[in-house]
Amino acid sequence: MAPIMSFEQMWRDLRPVGKSGTSGGYHRPAFGAAERECAAWFEEECLRRDLSTSRDGNGNVVAWWTRQPPADHQRPASGGIVTGSHLDSVPEGGAYDGPLGVLSGFAAVDLLRDRGFLPSKPIGVASFVEEEGSRFGVACLGSRLMTGAFSAERATELRDEAGTFLPDAMAAHGLEPTLGRSDLLDGVECFVELHVEQGRDLVGRDAAIGVASAIWPHGRYRFDFAGEANHAGTTRMEDRHDPVLTYAMTALAANKQARLSGSRTTFGRVDVHPNATNAVPSHVTAWMDARAETSQELESMVSEIERLASERAGRDGTSVRMGVESISAAVTFEPGLARRIATQDEGRDWPIIATMAGHDAGVISEAGVSTAMLFVRNPTGVSHSPEEFAELADCEAGVVALADTLQRLAS
Amino acid sequence: MAPIMSFEQMWRDLRPVGKSGTSGGYHRPAFGAAERECAAWFEEECLRRDLSTSRDGNGNVVAWWTRQPPADHQRPASGGIVTGSHLDSVPEGGAYDGPLGVLSGFAAVDLLRDRGFLPSKPIGVASFVEEEGSRFGVACLGSRLMTGAFSAERATELRDEAGTFLPDAMAAHGLEPTLGRSDLLDGVECFVELHVEQGRDLVGRDAAIGVASAIWPHGRYRFDFAGEANHAGTTRMEDRHDPVLTYAMTALAANKQARLSGSRTTFGRVDVHPNATNAVPSHVTAWMDARAETSQELESMVSEIERLASERAGRDGTSVRMGVESISAAVTFEPGLARRIATQDEGRDWPIIATMAGHDAGVISEAGVSTAMLFVRNPTGVSHSPEEFAELADCEAGVVALADTLQRLAS
Repeated sequence: MAPIMSFEQMWRDLRPVGKSGTSGGYHRPAFGAAERECAAWFEEECLRRDLSTSRDGNGNVVAWWTRQPPADHQRPASGGIVTGSHLDSVPEGGAYDGPLGVLSGFAAVDLLRDRGFLPSKPIGVASFVEEEGSRFGVACLGSRLMTGAFSAERATELRDEAGTFLPDAMAAHGLEPTLGRSDLLDGVECFVELHVEQGRDLVGRDAAIGVASAIWPHGRYRFDFAGEANHAGTTRMEDRHDPVLTYAMTALAANKQARLSGSRTTFGRVDVHPNATNAVPSHVTAWMDARAETSQELESMVSEIERLASERAGRDGTSVRMGVESISAAVTFEPGLARRIATQDEGRDWPIIATMAGHDAGVISEAGVSTAMLFVRNPTGVSHSPEEFAELADCEAGVVALADTLQRLAS
Repeated sequence: MAPIMSFEQMWRDLRPVGKSGTSGGYHRPAFGAAERECAAWFEEECLRRDLSTSRDGNGNVVAWWTRQPPADHQRPASGGIVTGSHLDSVPEGGAYDGPLGVLSGFAAVDLLRDRGFLPSKPIGVASFVEEEGSRFGVACLGSRLMTGAFSAERATELRDEAGTFLPDAMAAHGLEPTLGRSDLLDGVECFVELHVEQGRDLVGRDAAIGVASAIWPHGRYRFDFAGEANHAGTTRMEDRHDPVLTYAMTALAANKQARLSGSRTTFGRVDVHPNATNAVPSHVTAWMDARAETSQELESMVSEIERLASERAGRDGTSVRMGVESISAAVTFEPGLARRIATQDEGRDWPIIATMAGHDAGVISEAGVSTAMLFVRNPTGVSHSPEEFAELADCEAGVVALADTLQRLAS
């Protein structure tokens, strides 16, 4: 297979943006300077290919390739097959999670044009904002706003850690926020997201490419542990109301519950107040990420963790309050579409696998669009980290797989 | 007893500085705007009383009252009795910890002048910088630098959380840092620090005033827990190297060890990286404050906690490294001086009590100066918190006690 030159070039252009010189990790929070540089890169790639763009008031954008470019560079009248992903990253994230899907969309368009393919349906390459939720706390915020799964009212009140409201963060980069449900994908027949695998399932199966069967249900929960600030030296242990203890026990209990049920929990973020070495903290806020195979399993695991936290708070003389920040229901992708995509002429089909990670594809599937996902093998299995990786040959296999899929769907 | 007007006036002047409008907590980090406003207040009080000031290159200052003011407003040739404390606070601290001692020093001078007392030895009111160590991580930094207990080389390398070096923080407020041992208290006969009590010992004894017998040994330890960053959804629990778990178990183990030995441990500060809800963290840094009745007890407790942390790290597939940030040895104040101060004419002596909190008085005692401490009753027993309190009548009793003590010592 000849190398896909446009892929390598795009990869070189995008690679340095938001990369830490020391750790090699990526910092591309939504509507930050680095992510906006990625957005500008997206525009340039559209211009280079003479793709017309349509965008919504949430910051999402689709670049359209049509047999006949629409006269006014607007979104095509109806229908179409869309691929794409996101350009933001978690703090200290990897290079592939998100950008690989957007970039492969452009490379697939190039490959289809090289093949002389003329789409009978418009083909779109999309970029959705704030997929990671690492700035405003809501995963897949862009796609959820677009489909109406997250309300404009709640979005208007979202703030980042520095206190900046979402609309202000957008306006700071010249965007005109009109948050809420948009028609960006209205009438679209199929959405296909390509993504780096975030585990080692494909490594174990010795396959470069996989097709998604389902996404596990996923929730984010905020725990507020309240105690009493005090002096670290003079306050007797038995007189304390130390919220760190309740938090620590809850983090350990959550880990144990996930192990017992074959699910996942993570206490990856914490905020201690006042966070001074010589003061017993007055309160601790901690966020739990939890995922399980079914919604029932997720609910019962989280209830048990909440119960254990309250029990411990009783012993520590503290209090705990748990709030749900977001819940993503289980997503089952259309089995017929997944099988159709996975079937290969040579007879060796791509494996169909489940994923525990949320994706814009899940949100779009929930909104009733026929949706599929392609995964590209990740030898480290690591994601949300500078260790995240995919071999160039596997990325190129991904572009070919995506081009083949778009060609089948848009013929 | 008539109210001590100067005390009330000074209290009114100082009370709003660095106070949070929402929580009522004080934020006066060393060489920050609020603490420098307190330093300017100190200067004004000196001018108001025609006290000459001497200062050192660490930011410490002493205001001198002498029978004959020295001609060049320099520090007196030799000897003297010094009182004082500090003006910085922990984040979300109380109003009394530190300022009460400085302010009572000025009020005691006023009271002695009202009494017509002429000191045969100079009387000094001191203010030492960064007693809390909440900005640069080293408690009693100002007094330790002054006595040579902390080296200028190490101090030059100290940085706050924003990365600002100590000398730069000082220079930003027009100070000319020449860090290191200074002669500020050279030749001083006695140092007496007045401080709000940080427990309820005096409440239990129904006494407004107490005298210190000793300070428990006290250490600050930094724990670095290293794991592997990963995706919170896709990484199986058994494949994780999550440093939060090792940290959480260590915090709980430290609490248990302190309870078992009647000592104190606190994990009040933590820094998680990258601190994102949907990422298994790569590392956690946490600071432990530990105090015990004897150095041997402190050492053996901390070793046991370190051993338990390492054991758990082995099970979590993480690593842990513990470093000592500072150790303050046990301080026993001169028993003869304490008894002399505690003895009251009316026959009801002030109680002599131990404290678990570090103070500049401890550092100065270690340097060989005859040192004593007076405590003022705190009805809440709470300190390092907006709940910290002392009744005005008890504060005034403190001023009288301090004035009596200075009068005895300077006669």
